[in-house]
Amino acid sequence: MPESNPAMTDATTGAGRFSPALLTDLYELTMLEAYFEERMHETAVFSLFVRRLPERRNYLMACGLDDVLAFLEQMRFDAAALAYLDSLGRFSGRFLRYLENFRFTGDVHAVPEGTPVFPPAPILEVVAPLPEAQLVESFVMNQIHLQTLLATKAARVVRAAQGRQVVDFGMRRIHGIDAAMKGARAFHIAGVDATSNVAAGQAYGLKVAGTMAHSYIQAHEDEYEAFRAFARLYPETILLVDTYDTLDGVRKVVKLAGELGPDFRVSAIRLDSGDLVQLAIQSRRILDDAGLRGVRIFASGNLNEDEIQRLIAAGAPIDGFGVGTDMGVSRDVPSVDIVYKLVEYAGAGRIKLSPGKALLPGRKQVFRVERDGVAEYDVLGDANEPGAGRPLLAPVMQGGARLPAGRVTLDEARAHASREVARLPARIRAIEPADPPYAVRISDALTASSEAIRRAHRE
Amino acid sequence: MPESNPAMTDATTGAGRFSPALLTDLYELTMLEAYFEERMHETAVFSLFVRRLPERRNYLMACGLDDVLAFLEQMRFDAAALAYLDSLGRFSGRFLRYLENFRFTGDVHAVPEGTPVFPPAPILEVVAPLPEAQLVESFVMNQIHLQTLLATKAARVVRAAQGRQVVDFGMRRIHGIDAAMKGARAFHIAGVDATSNVAAGQAYGLKVAGTMAHSYIQAHEDEYEAFRAFARLYPETILLVDTYDTLDGVRKVVKLAGELGPDFRVSAIRLDSGDLVQLAIQSRRILDDAGLRGVRIFASGNLNEDEIQRLIAAGAPIDGFGVGTDMGVSRDVPSVDIVYKLVEYAGAGRIKLSPGKALLPGRKQVFRVERDGVAEYDVLGDANEPGAGRPLLAPVMQGGARLPAGRVTLDEARAHASREVARLPARIRAIEPADPPYAVRISDALTASSEAIRRAHRE
Repeated sequence: MPESNPAMTDATTGAGRFSPALLTDLYELTMLEAYFEERMHETAVFSLFVRRLPERRNYLMACGLDDVLAFLEQMRFDAAALAYLDSLGRFSGRFLRYLENFRFTGDVHAVPEGTPVFPPAPILEVVAPLPEAQLVESFVMNQIHLQTLLATKAARVVRAAQGRQVVDFGMRRIHGIDAAMKGARAFHIAGVDATSNVAAGQAYGLKVAGTMAHSYIQAHEDEYEAFRAFARLYPETILLVDTYDTLDGVRKVVKLAGELGPDFRVSAIRLDSGDLVQLAIQSRRILDDAGLRGVRIFASGNLNEDEIQRLIAAGAPIDGFGVGTDMGVSRDVPSVDIVYKLVEYAGAGRIKLSPGKALLPGRKQVFRVERDGVAEYDVLGDANEPGAGRPLLAPVMQGGARLPAGRVTLDEARAHASREVARLPARIRAIEPADPPYAVRISDALTASSEAIRRAHRE
Repeated sequence: MPESNPAMTDATTGAGRFSPALLTDLYELTMLEAYFEERMHETAVFSLFVRRLPERRNYLMACGLDDVLAFLEQMRFDAAALAYLDSLGRFSGRFLRYLENFRFTGDVHAVPEGTPVFPPAPILEVVAPLPEAQLVESFVMNQIHLQTLLATKAARVVRAAQGRQVVDFGMRRIHGIDAAMKGARAFHIAGVDATSNVAAGQAYGLKVAGTMAHSYIQAHEDEYEAFRAFARLYPETILLVDTYDTLDGVRKVVKLAGELGPDFRVSAIRLDSGDLVQLAIQSRRILDDAGLRGVRIFASGNLNEDEIQRLIAAGAPIDGFGVGTDMGVSRDVPSVDIVYKLVEYAGAGRIKLSPGKALLPGRKQVFRVERDGVAEYDVLGDANEPGAGRPLLAPVMQGGARLPAGRVTLDEARAHASREVARLPARIRAIEPADPPYAVRISDALTASSEAIRRAHRE
């Protein structure tokens, strides 16, 4: 664990500039005061789910639970938070005193990180006194949305690479520092092999990777000199060959091999621009003709799952991919319609009738129905009904404290993700749109309870 | 300034889990060691710019400089960072000792935050010993990319609202905590009126806003009771009317006005679903017929600049907009092609010939040529040539310390942005694609020096 350096963290993480408990929308706090004044502290159930699958996704990969549970365990209103809220002139002194002792004391049920999920099934449910469950909405949504979005995208990239190495190069254009860190984490769970983000390596124990930029080549008078100097320091490095003329760059690598003889241990070349299929084929030929069959070809530059699939289908002899912005911002689907909705209060199911935004009431369970080890469909049912398949939601926090199921290592989550994806039907694992899409059925019991509440509300 | 709470910050900002100086791509560090071993510490110039304007943007709004300068002033390799790097087994002891004393001692030239910029003109240039300028690449790009992307999007939303209130509701689906904070900051510079993010209000002194969610209504047995209870606590609140039936909700607000008489001070209703044009018109009529002309109409729910423009054009009597995900993730353009490139080393201009990624060499200046106070075009020239127009890049850091021009308050930046946008031609300020787009000319001097270097390289 690094020593803390508060002066530093300002510019990077923003720590010290704000109170973590205030990472919430203002209306959560105004509602909280109203609940406090109205003494509405019965148990509420909030359900976090995505309303519908985006067009270019066959499943979502649930991710971000660990950060949510850590937040719930730790959240406190510090003196600075209370002073700031007081300065707004909106909140009563007695409400601020209540916040001073505020703790999250509730339960959380969730699917394990790395689980493929299908809307509108819940990713997690919070069961807690109404104010506690309400207040944490913004942070819980923010983290599950980000990490689920990025794990889902990365799972597609990993799939497209068909076992070839995938490295996260996203830091420079991913949306901020938290996304750079949590993204690297989510990518690892989804099966990405390494990250270029050194801080993520430090924080999460991820494998870090990286070699040289064009600027290194440019800073030298001569490309060959740059290769030689770098290979001297890092004999097993990857050399970037496209700064001036790609194939000319490859020939310089061959020349270096001739010069170094048995000391030549360069592991790969990197292509970062141009027609990657043709350049990879020609580079491979140049390397092979020189007897450098062990030098691999690594590609980068605006890659995503579609482009990787195209490259492999076109026969490009590429051994690994550096994937940056498209994966880092989930460019084709940069958000999903995730919501956190009250579905039960004081023991009674709750609904909403807003056009296009209707809700199913009550605590739920998701049952995955499998045949011969392959998932056929999910059933979304009441939490307590006998399910037809494997239940996915499990208790991970009780009374504000984590349960063992809420403490999973990153590598366990990665292994779980890999196993669960392997159990999906082939058409759902594929990058192409699944036809038919995976089915989620609503159980008879849930349909009945939903109808009963609707009728009661209309009467 | 809040008191620090390290246990807390783990789950929210990640502070304490990683060393801020390690927020870099691994290859920056491997190149750094190579520069160190090769004694390459002459002055380098790196230029940060966007290669091309995305399709749905007529200009970019530069943003994020303050966080970059704070990082450059503060970056240090702490003991944990050095221990982690040592654990990788890639770096020599003498290189790690060099890092221990590493400081950024260079200069930065930049356009002020809030300035409209046009690719490929630089947003900032770093002039520093090569290793220092190289190492900071990843963080500098990450922050300028995020904040420029979000300020640019927000400027369009503000433009579409034509003076009506715009509130940032993005926190729940924006990409992580850093984006939630820096986004609220960028939105403010771009002219957004308030944010729902309480921590951003605390950190930046932004106006915070927010009222109630559907869950508050749902948690009550009856919508009318919910309205009454909330208005009692917050007399000037905004009531959310679409939980069950929107117009029925509006009629309950009218009923409440009748009940409370002179004590009724509700400021607005909020519509969050359905046909906002029809619902706003009908709600306005119901309110007006009841003599509630002072009750405004606030809209939210999947809003962006196009939808706001459409609502206003269709005559929807909406007074303010809550804008969430589309602005928070810049959904139509979630990344721009921002780069940070070596353009000069040891006094000599540097280029790159990769297909589609060619560079202009040397330190630059951007001259904005105006007539009658309206910008006509920009000229991208050498830093030292006599310019035809107003120079936009100015020194903001010298020898690692900020200059007064590098210390600008958020409100100054917001005022600057507003003034500078007002000086753009109407077609460039508009939301529709500008025809013709704003022109950026390359000066004769810059063209000549670029050609000379290219020729020299080819020979």
